[in-house]
Amino acid sequence: MQNFSDHLIAIIRKKNSCVVVGLDPHFKLIPDDIKQKFLNLHKPSLEYAARVILEFNIQVIDIITPYVGIVKPQIAFYELYGWWGIWAYAETIKYAKEKGLIVIGDVKRGDVPTTAEAYANAHIGEVYVNDTIETPFAADAVTVNPFLGTDSILPFIQTAKKHNKGIFILVKTSNPLSGEFQNLICGKKKLHEIIAEKTNEWGKDLIGKEGYSAIGAVVGATFPKEITTLRKVMPIAFFLVPGYGAQGATVQDIKYCFNKDGLGAIINASRSILYAYDISPWKEKYGITAWKEATREALIKMNEEINEIFLDVTK
Amino acid sequence: MQNFSDHLIAIIRKKNSCVVVGLDPHFKLIPDDIKQKFLNLHKPSLEYAARVILEFNIQVIDIITPYVGIVKPQIAFYELYGWWGIWAYAETIKYAKEKGLIVIGDVKRGDVPTTAEAYANAHIGEVYVNDTIETPFAADAVTVNPFLGTDSILPFIQTAKKHNKGIFILVKTSNPLSGEFQNLICGKKKLHEIIAEKTNEWGKDLIGKEGYSAIGAVVGATFPKEITTLRKVMPIAFFLVPGYGAQGATVQDIKYCFNKDGLGAIINASRSILYAYDISPWKEKYGITAWKEATREALIKMNEEINEIFLDVTK
Repeated sequence: MQNFSDHLIAIIRKKNSCVVVGLDPHFKLIPDDIKQKFLNLHKPSLEYAARVILEFNIQVIDIITPYVGIVKPQIAFYELYGWWGIWAYAETIKYAKEKGLIVIGDVKRGDVPTTAEAYANAHIGEVYVNDTIETPFAADAVTVNPFLGTDSILPFIQTAKKHNKGIFILVKTSNPLSGEFQNLICGKKKLHEIIAEKTNEWGKDLIGKEGYSAIGAVVGATFPKEITTLRKVMPIAFFLVPGYGAQGATVQDIKYCFNKDGLGAIINASRSILYAYDISPWKEKYGITAWKEATREALIKMNEEINEIFLDVTK
Repeated sequence: MQNFSDHLIAIIRKKNSCVVVGLDPHFKLIPDDIKQKFLNLHKPSLEYAARVILEFNIQVIDIITPYVGIVKPQIAFYELYGWWGIWAYAETIKYAKEKGLIVIGDVKRGDVPTTAEAYANAHIGEVYVNDTIETPFAADAVTVNPFLGTDSILPFIQTAKKHNKGIFILVKTSNPLSGEFQNLICGKKKLHEIIAEKTNEWGKDLIGKEGYSAIGAVVGATFPKEITTLRKVMPIAFFLVPGYGAQGATVQDIKYCFNKDGLGAIINASRSILYAYDISPWKEKYGITAWKEATREALIKMNEEINEIFLDVTK
């Protein structure tokens, strides 16, 4: 087993892509032909929704796997369908891993130490039931909220270390008001800069052969000014970058997420890939009946856009 | 339907208790007689664990219902058993509500607005599946992490308002290093004081007949010095207070969580009630075979201890 960051870099090189496809099911946007397969299950409805979501995810994974190595299911959109939704979340991870993809569980958990340990074991670790060891969700990495402090993060770090998994600490999130608390000036630094320093520090014990740590950072593409500073503060951290596409960030915005080696960042897109059929120019070109072609082409185009940055950054 | 805070106050008065029993299943500590009922299910193990947990919770709820009106399942200890664990979480909430208890889902969720909306609907709201409305978890309130800012909180507030539910914002958590970020000085105030001001502000639109808001705050009993300040900053917020019992806080520590009206706080205990049989003096008096008596007596004693503060505060 290799360090999570080496695993990440290997798959980026293999697929020639540092895109992450966010597997965020929006029930209304899932094509009707999938929904109709399960209409006999419309009661109970949560089971029906979960089965539709899983089938959609499987079809999406089949389309994207030749072009991308990383997926990121956002667990909130599964929790929305109760325990059936969580069943779909678990099965989605299992299928993605069978296809050789790296799975980042976007769970943003954070709690007091004993509780954080339970979350860490649930998502990237293991649990004993009498003498049997089970791996409940078995994601390769998770996102973690640092608000509770170092003792709430340590169980995730220890679990990541034990199982060669990764974590991404929320440093500067992509939502419009993320600065409200994250940009508060504490002494001479902004709160998110202090958390960035901690994140780089926490990561020093888990550095892989390529020089990156298994402890990364979530840095929103929607705040390009902060990115340059954060890149310097966290040289060994991989950035998981949300906000590209549907949230409005462009190629120029994410350019400085990358180091000179062309590495150090993975760029997430969810709605703009999964539901490309609903967005120009794919909407006009393909529409919903050819949603798979729209998704494929949107992903290929995103790969090309990002790879141009690579060439630019590594000049 | 009444405002969540009025609902809370009504049940506190009815049961003469402002205790919250934390339903935190620790598989190893669950008595063997319950585990043996499900041994034919030891494969698959996650299902077995989940069925044991649910049965334990049902027995606990039956014991505590005469003495307490509020329970707080911590979802991490259910996620630890995968989607089967979440099934046990959902069924636990359903059973507790059938018994007339108020259920606070301790989920500590927090995410960007569209994602926060999914979490809010999952836990205290509803979801449409085609034309059917489903309520996935149907807790009465949830805990929420404020790190992402106001736009990440608004979906929870709006959902709480629409369905007469409650939320508790993490203001000052009970873990030993909670001060690392939460006590940082931003200008003239500590970060958690700034969040406390926001919490009181967010709550002004959801005030019930008794003068309290449906937007409360999590304030750890383990930091008594902060409590007095926070009580002044958030006069209309109910405090959900963890840290009593197993985490070391005493009656004196939580005294100033209450307002002069004897209201404004609910005090959580988990391990010291659920596994009282494992703690002195109940360990010696009862032991594991009489675990129900230990739990009942520990709870009655905790009620008495806290009610003495009431008398003291309202003098």
